[in-house]
Formats: sequence, C-alpha cells, structure tokens
Amino acid sequence: MRLFNKITIIGVGLIGGSIGLSIKNRGLAKEVTGVFRRPSTLRRALRHKAIDNGTLNIKEGVRGADLIILATPVYSIPLVGREAMRYANAGAIITDAGSTKSWVVAKMERLAASRRSVFFVGSHPMAGSEKAGVEFSTADLFEGSPCIVTRTRSTDEGAIKKVAAFWKALGGRVKVMSPASHDKSISLVSHLPHLVAFSLAGAIPEKDIVYAAEGFRDTTRVASSDPKLWADIFLTNKKDIITAGRMFEKYYADIVRALSKGDHGGIVRMLKKAKSKRDKFVYGEKT
Amino acid sequence: MRLFNKITIIGVGLIGGSIGLSIKNRGLAKEVTGVFRRPSTLRRALRHKAIDNGTLNIKEGVRGADLIILATPVYSIPLVGREAMRYANAGAIITDAGSTKSWVVAKMERLAASRRSVFFVGSHPMAGSEKAGVEFSTADLFEGSPCIVTRTRSTDEGAIKKVAAFWKALGGRVKVMSPASHDKSISLVSHLPHLVAFSLAGAIPEKDIVYAAEGFRDTTRVASSDPKLWADIFLTNKKDIITAGRMFEKYYADIVRALSKGDHGGIVRMLKKAKSKRDKFVYGEKT
Repeated sequence: MRLFNKITIIGVGLIGGSIGLSIKNRGLAKEVTGVFRRPSTLRRALRHKAIDNGTLNIKEGVRGADLIILATPVYSIPLVGREAMRYANAGAIITDAGSTKSWVVAKMERLAASRRSVFFVGSHPMAGSEKAGVEFSTADLFEGSPCIVTRTRSTDEGAIKKVAAFWKALGGRVKVMSPASHDKSISLVSHLPHLVAFSLAGAIPEKDIVYAAEGFRDTTRVASSDPKLWADIFLTNKKDIITAGRMFEKYYADIVRALSKGDHGGIVRMLKKAKSKRDKFVYGEKT
Repeated sequence: MRLFNKITIIGVGLIGGSIGLSIKNRGLAKEVTGVFRRPSTLRRALRHKAIDNGTLNIKEGVRGADLIILATPVYSIPLVGREAMRYANAGAIITDAGSTKSWVVAKMERLAASRRSVFFVGSHPMAGSEKAGVEFSTADLFEGSPCIVTRTRSTDEGAIKKVAAFWKALGGRVKVMSPASHDKSISLVSHLPHLVAFSLAGAIPEKDIVYAAEGFRDTTRVASSDPKLWADIFLTNKKDIITAGRMFEKYYADIVRALSKGDHGGIVRMLKKAKSKRDKFVYGEKT
C-alpha cells in the first residue's frame, strides 16, 4: 500500500536500513533514497538493498521527498535536520527515530518554526539491536514492537496522522504521547536497563567472564551497543535517567540490606514483587 | 557410553530433570531413579520421561546407586544430603548441582566425614532457565555450558575424576577449582546479574512496562526466576555477592557521575570498556 511517493532516510545504519527494507518490502513508497556521510556505507546499503538509491548530499537527497526520516545518532539529528528542513519540498513531513524526544523535538520544532510549509513529528520506533550497521538491518525489525509518536502544541494533525500510519504499516504498535512522557517512560524501560547492563559488563573482571553463562549473556547483551550512540542518548535524557536510576538504586539497596541482615523473608518478598512485574511483560514472545 | 550403573537424582525440577534426560539420551547409566517430595511431581517427571522410576523415599531411592545427584534448592542440599549419605551404598559418589559451593561443600564434607566409604564432590553445572519445573527440562541443557567441579583437601581423586567425566559426558565444559574460587567468580558472573535484574524489574513502575522492548526483555529475563531458590543462593553466598555488588555499584556510580557532569568523553570511555569486555563473551552463540 503506497503511503508516500518518495521517502528519504538520512543515516542508514541498523535502524535506517531496517526502515528502508521494510518500506520496500511493503511497497509503502515509490522510491527510497538514502543520505550518507561515507561512500563506503552508501555502497553497503545498496548491496544490502536497503535503499533504491543514495547520495552524500542532503539537498539532493531530500529533493522531491514527501517523507524524510532522520535516523542518525541523537546528537546529529538537529544537524542533519536543519539541512533537511532547508531543502525539503513544501508539504514534506520530517520525522526521526531517536531514543530521546524532548531534546530532539524542541530543537526540531525551533527549526520548523522558520519553514511553515514543512512539518516535523517526533518518533521513536522501539526496536533495535546491540549490533550496528546496515548489514544487520531486517525488513521485520519493527513488527510487533512499540513505536512512540510525539504530539506537542505545534504538531500538525495531518502530519502526525501520516507518521502514525507509516509506523503502523511497518508493524509497530503506535502510541502517541508528549515528548516529556516519552522520555520519562523510556528512561525507565530502556535507558536505565542500558546503563545497568553497561555497568555490569564494565564491573566484572575479564578473567571471570569465562565462567559466565546465560544469565550474564542476557543481562549484559545491550552492553555491546555502540558507546557513542548511547552516550548521546544518556546525555540528552540526563534528568530522567538519573531519576530512574534512583528508583533502581533504592530497590537494589533494599535487597542488599535484607541480604546483609540475613533476612530471608525480606529478600523473597522483594524478588517476588520483581518477578511478578517481569512475568507481566509479553513482548519477549517475539523471537 | 555407560559410566554408572544406577544414578539417583534427588529433586527433579528443571535441572534434575535435564540431568535425567541427558543421562538417558546418552546411555550413561543403566537406570535413572528420581526422588521426590510430592507424588504429583513424580508423575510429571515420569510423563516427561526424565527418569526411569521414582520414589518419595530417599532410603529406597539411593539403594544400589553408584552416583547420587542432589538437585534441590541450595538450602535443602545438606538436608537431603544427610539422608543420602546415611543410606548410600559403600563406594557411592554423591554430588550436587547447587549455585553456591563453600556453604554446600563444607556441610556435605562434615557429613561425609562420618561415612568414609561414601564420597562427596561439589558440582555446579552452569545452565538453567528462568523457568522452573521438570516440564521445561531438556536433554541438551548442559551442552557447551561451563560446569564447575570443586576440589578440597578432603576430595577423593577417584571420585572427582568420575564426576568430571560425568559432566563432560553431558556436554559441559568442566573446570576444577576450590569452592571459594567458585563462589567468588560466580558471584560476579551469575549471582550479581540476578541481583541486578531483580532490582531493575522491581524498580520499574508497572504502567511503564507496556513500552518495554528487547533491552528490557533481556536485561530482566532472569528476574522471572524462582524467588525462594534465589533467596537461598544469595544468602549462602552473601559475602561474595556483597563484594561483587560493590564493584558494580562503583562502575555504575562512575557513569552516573560522568552523566551528571555532562562529561561525554568520560561516558564514552566507560561504555567502551564495558563493551569491549562484553564483546569477548562468546557463550551466547548457543541458542
């Protein structure tokens, strides 16, 4: 089902590449263009068939696009977004795929204020992998995964409807909320688990890792994620992550305190409460 | 390859059941007997074909066994171990599958001192699942997983050789070490990740879990584990877990401090170090 004529993806790594593959797989656009920083990545994306054509030039890439997706690391979104905004056709919609929203949306809406005929809507498709690069992109990455689309007072109703329909067509379970609500919830269910996983992997002496099994494997999987990409995410959602961290620290300290006291009943109670929450999570059924 | 005549497994849940299935699958014994507390579990184990026959009576169950495996929760090991020791045939070897070793081995060796013709060797096959119950047991659970066998000054050389050969026959990558070394390493690569996963799942408000994706799924998977079983493990390895916890707390606090200061370079450095360690872990190739 054709939703757009030309979709341009700026930044074609794991996420951008998976978006491209999904669009082509579902026939959602006549043409998918990629915009790259490096010729080598452009060649890899073409080889992986994640895009129909590519360019190193944003101006050229966005020409004629009715949907532009910014799929770079968070800090680069406003930088490439500024260029995209400048050269986009009148009526074009710009969205992104960044993990933090208040920071991105505020910057993008400021830029959009100077181009009334181009619309920005923030998005966060909550799928991904600890692996980086277009080689790992797949056409079903967004199938069944949560996808948050943000609404603010400046959001154009026609644009947000189209962006929501787009992610839904990619298989996402779309939720609309404010950038602030997004950042608060996602700091808890995504950013904090990453912070904790990095801390775990970092703390364990290398010589002991040979004894590690499935528990370590899963608990630290996301610690293999790209450090720069995650430093960006942490810093653009600093306040919420620190608040989320305090909630984690408190639960952790309470278990450790019960452990120090030898309080078996207290430990069981806290582990049971944790288990009952974890058992409610069902997304894991997807493999 | 027949290694034993009769193997008795006391406690046939996920681990005991998987041991039974693996023994039968590989023809490592002529007979596999299970010892149970509840008739309903005995029936489920027979239905799952994890054992050849079962009983609720330890005395009857261990009669004629040349290998006895204690696969109950940690706290019960010395309790059922005392009975097993009393009724075991002369020459029998007793081992266990508990997650902590100093506590278990000290208690079992004290009991073994009164029965010179029965040998105890501590084991920890490092495989498992957040799922509990014989229904989830599989014949290949130990394939490729680390399996620690402990040696102390009282360990009988013939017995430890046979126990090591047994786990190797089940597919385990056997390592021999002292109970104290085991507890220190395993507090880092297994107990600490469980403590952290429980703390994460416990801290996150239920209403936000709907937005969780793969990061949360994997980081908290083991928080679905049995609370009582893990309270036992935590308490029997308390000192090492608290020490391991301090290493984690330090790494975590350092990242949070860099985050509070907005120190991008500092965060990247710490995440990189964590990633480089996690990337060395290869066990995850097993699916």
